[in-house]
Amino acid sequence: MKIKVTQEKLAKALNNISRIAVGKVTLPILNNVLIRVDQKKVSLITTNLDMAIVDFLPVSDSEDGVITVPAKLLAEFISNLPKGEVIELKSKDNKLIISTKNYSSTINGSSADDFPELPEISDKTATVFKINCEEFKNSLGQVIIASSNDLTRPALTGVYFNTVDQTLAIAATDGYRLAEKKLIEKVKSEIKAIVPTSSLQEVLRSITDEIDEIEMSFNESLVRFRLGEIEVISKLIDASFPEYQKLIPKNNDVKVLLSREELARVTKLAALFARSVGGSIVCESIPDNTFSVKSITNEFGENDSKIETEVKKAGKVNLNSRFLLDALNALEEEKINFEFSSHVNPVVLTNQKNNKYIHIIMPLNS
Amino acid sequence: MKIKVTQEKLAKALNNISRIAVGKVTLPILNNVLIRVDQKKVSLITTNLDMAIVDFLPVSDSEDGVITVPAKLLAEFISNLPKGEVIELKSKDNKLIISTKNYSSTINGSSADDFPELPEISDKTATVFKINCEEFKNSLGQVIIASSNDLTRPALTGVYFNTVDQTLAIAATDGYRLAEKKLIEKVKSEIKAIVPTSSLQEVLRSITDEIDEIEMSFNESLVRFRLGEIEVISKLIDASFPEYQKLIPKNNDVKVLLSREELARVTKLAALFARSVGGSIVCESIPDNTFSVKSITNEFGENDSKIETEVKKAGKVNLNSRFLLDALNALEEEKINFEFSSHVNPVVLTNQKNNKYIHIIMPLNS
Repeated sequence: MKIKVTQEKLAKALNNISRIAVGKVTLPILNNVLIRVDQKKVSLITTNLDMAIVDFLPVSDSEDGVITVPAKLLAEFISNLPKGEVIELKSKDNKLIISTKNYSSTINGSSADDFPELPEISDKTATVFKINCEEFKNSLGQVIIASSNDLTRPALTGVYFNTVDQTLAIAATDGYRLAEKKLIEKVKSEIKAIVPTSSLQEVLRSITDEIDEIEMSFNESLVRFRLGEIEVISKLIDASFPEYQKLIPKNNDVKVLLSREELARVTKLAALFARSVGGSIVCESIPDNTFSVKSITNEFGENDSKIETEVKKAGKVNLNSRFLLDALNALEEEKINFEFSSHVNPVVLTNQKNNKYIHIIMPLNS
Repeated sequence: MKIKVTQEKLAKALNNISRIAVGKVTLPILNNVLIRVDQKKVSLITTNLDMAIVDFLPVSDSEDGVITVPAKLLAEFISNLPKGEVIELKSKDNKLIISTKNYSSTINGSSADDFPELPEISDKTATVFKINCEEFKNSLGQVIIASSNDLTRPALTGVYFNTVDQTLAIAATDGYRLAEKKLIEKVKSEIKAIVPTSSLQEVLRSITDEIDEIEMSFNESLVRFRLGEIEVISKLIDASFPEYQKLIPKNNDVKVLLSREELARVTKLAALFARSVGGSIVCESIPDNTFSVKSITNEFGENDSKIETEVKKAGKVNLNSRFLLDALNALEEEKINFEFSSHVNPVVLTNQKNNKYIHIIMPLNS
């Protein structure tokens, strides 16, 4: 194997793929990057068994071959070399020899035979969607916050990609809150797949300003996100996602229109006091024109803030302040709808106008 | 006690002083800020017993009195209130009532009698120095890196302020390296005092662009740094600082002039490989024109970088790469002097021209 490439190109590619190379003690080869030159096409691959990142490196001068070396060491080494320099990488007896005009290094590697590559996704049979990069990034950010870290409930540790009535939606829930965003309308294919949140976070990190469009290709057990020269391939979560549509309350008695910024501010104030009671705050609608956010604790004292707005019906609900702040952060418009029907039913939060995003939060016991 | 003040002023003052309010379980009042209005003069005070920060808050409308409340809670609360608003603080039965147009809160406080204030420094008997803020900040940054965290050797956990031949110098050492900077020439007073590094870090954090000059006032056991409206008062470390002048080698056989940036780069490259051997790298001067930085490890491989420069005498020394990088970071000029006499003597690093700063590093066993 031999490659000649500029410092900038190689440093960028290694930076793209080296994040997930964090070897387990039991499988140290996961620390490594696989460098493969096959018919003059150079690919750099890292994997953590659940997912893989591939970067196709454009290289003018190369010889076929394959080697694996520690990814982080190589990435840091290359990034510290002077910009503009031409770097030669050459494999010899499972060692990688790096040379430039003034520097020479030999990194101990290991055989590529032991490297656990993920299976390929066949382009012929895959279900494919394409979406604008910026839109995908924003939408995923709105939904991913509601996903869970609880590994005992694997379905909740991912984001559910599902088509209903020719619309591709993404949804996530941790059992206490749920977020759904309509992603693409009038799609022709159908899909029901749970993609691990951790893999999606890598997709988000791989997005740069240079990339306009993301291509998502699903098969039975895998998904591949293609972003320019980078591919993120992930296993799907083999579990059933809750039938979440049923959880969204349709008819709410109390409907209040609030300034998103103002509600976020008073929630933050109440949250400071609510630390000693698990973040529990009281939201109350008082006819005719007050929405109040309160917290009372023995430890720190008490806090009461009022927002003026039109209120038709009285109601009261206890919420986790962190969940409310997350939701307000994910909503986009200046004004938002805050709806609920009683202190035991979920609160529904939506933008005043755009109805593509919905966020619901279960109340706390009062 | 009563204060009327704008959100901006109060938020800034609380931000200045609340950092060190991290109460110990055994003394929770250290979480608190003391708010004192005495003859219309408002001061906010926090302490961790070793040091105190005082902010004199300019307030137009006030009533005398004193109270203590949790500093972080108050700081975060005030910083979340809308800018431009006038805030009223009022004490009542060890509670602090905060009110603005739309918000009202009551924070539980405690009696100021239990608050452990540091003694005052008498301006009449103190030894006083004044120095330009920017210069103090930079100089302290150059020296503080060599101080120790080892609490069993208290003298080394501070920075030594000492006058020699009418020059005020600051120095720090952790036993493996030593940094000294000449701070003010032609001083009239004499001082020998060790100021805790942790207190100096608070002084550094308190420096803003608005402050031009720092006034330092020492007495037998305390030092006070005055920066505009803020005062940082600290106990001195009651120990003897090593007679460090003797540790600085005067006559070195090997003298090499190197590009600071280039040496930093090759040290970083060697450091990547040297991780598995405690950061140990080999610096070698080879007549007539090569300075080489090397690391060889069984685990990762080997690395050799060469810098072209005039070399009169051959020599070799093993250094901790992190210490060398710290020193190179602290030096200022483009070219630096790298001097040593054998593999067991310290390496001396200085700027090519300006001789106010000196950094020495003990070699590792080879």
